Amino acid sequence: MDRERFGQQMDFILEIDKEKQIQRQTHIRGYARAEDDAEHAWHMAIMAYLLREYANEPVDIARTMMMILTHDIVEIDAGDTYAYDDEGNQTKEEREKKAADRIYGLLPADQGQELMALWREFEECETPEARFAHVMDNFQPLMLNDINGGNDWRRHSVRISQTLKRNEKTASGSEEIWSYMAELLEKNVRIGNLIDDRD
Amino acid sequence: MDRERFGQQMDFILEIDKEKQIQRQTHIRGYARAEDDAEHAWHMAIMAYLLREYANEPVDIARTMMMILTHDIVEIDAGDTYAYDDEGNQTKEEREKKAADRIYGLLPADQGQELMALWREFEECETPEARFAHVMDNFQPLMLNDINGGNDWRRHSVRISQTLKRNEKTASGSEEIWSYMAELLEKNVRIGNLIDDRD
Repeated sequence: MDRERFGQQMDFILEIDKEKQIQRQTHIRGYARAEDDAEHAWHMAIMAYLLREYANEPVDIARTMMMILTHDIVEIDAGDTYAYDDEGNQTKEEREKKAADRIYGLLPADQGQELMALWREFEECETPEARFAHVMDNFQPLMLNDINGGNDWRRHSVRISQTLKRNEKTASGSEEIWSYMAELLEKNVRIGNLIDDRD
Repeated sequence: MDRERFGQQMDFILEIDKEKQIQRQTHIRGYARAEDDAEHAWHMAIMAYLLREYANEPVDIARTMMMILTHDIVEIDAGDTYAYDDEGNQTKEEREKKAADRIYGLLPADQGQELMALWREFEECETPEARFAHVMDNFQPLMLNDINGGNDWRRHSVRISQTLKRNEKTASGSEEIWSYMAELLEKNVRIGNLIDDRD
């Protein structure tokens, strides 16, 4: 074992423990508390494995899972930007780029580059794995929001146009899961959890 | 999409949300609070991916990660049994077997059988993937305990003989990581965080 290399790996592994303290807007099932980034990623990775049969194109599941498990690591420095926070989303890209340089820079160069590339691939959303990872990233909170009676949507007065914009690429990752998600969204418009602002 | 199959997958995915509420004895870095099973599994899966070069034998990383992500799901019904709770560990096997039948039984038969087999493989610890997953399962809390100044060991008056017994198979998964872990344990004996009960 090269102890310098192992030390760099441990620095990164101990640093990312902070993801357990990054609270999201979405609540765990039952609404007892907000969930954190680590829990969100854990849930998404299992979902990706179990639901990969619905991806539009075959995905390399190990790459997809690792992409999912690490996709929010930049939030350790950049914070969680709520999907419907328009102001925060304007500065998100720059804040996250800086965070990626610092945090992935803790790893040995080969692994830092690999994980940085995986994060960029997720952000660019142009490969089957990245597209499917984005389906999970949108479906996981939607599913919890729905089972929790839409509390988070109501609390933030979310409009259906915002959810549709956020999901504009979802069908490109999985038409089948998007079709189910669209039904859930319509149901939540009908019962008043989402504001219908369409013409 | 077969809606009955998808419904079974969703039942399982929503059920396992409960892992976010299963508290472990180990605390997150900084000791602010106990970590939960979902956070523990998330951390371990990333560690497995980054540290797989130290496994004694090559591992199929997708299988290893999925095994890790789901290895504690039985605790939803069976609860977390502390590694050094001798009484709890006597009934652990039976409680967990019953839990596995119920929870994996929510999935479509093919996926339920796959995940059940993966959990049994983890428990039996006889494949390279299971042995390496166990290294992660023991290293992740040890690493956090060490960085947190050994508080959890002191709180439970843990003896070095107990940690060595718990880790008797660790070297069979990774001699290199076990060698590092053994150093951390000796350091913690020296500074009084672990009780030295060896002859």
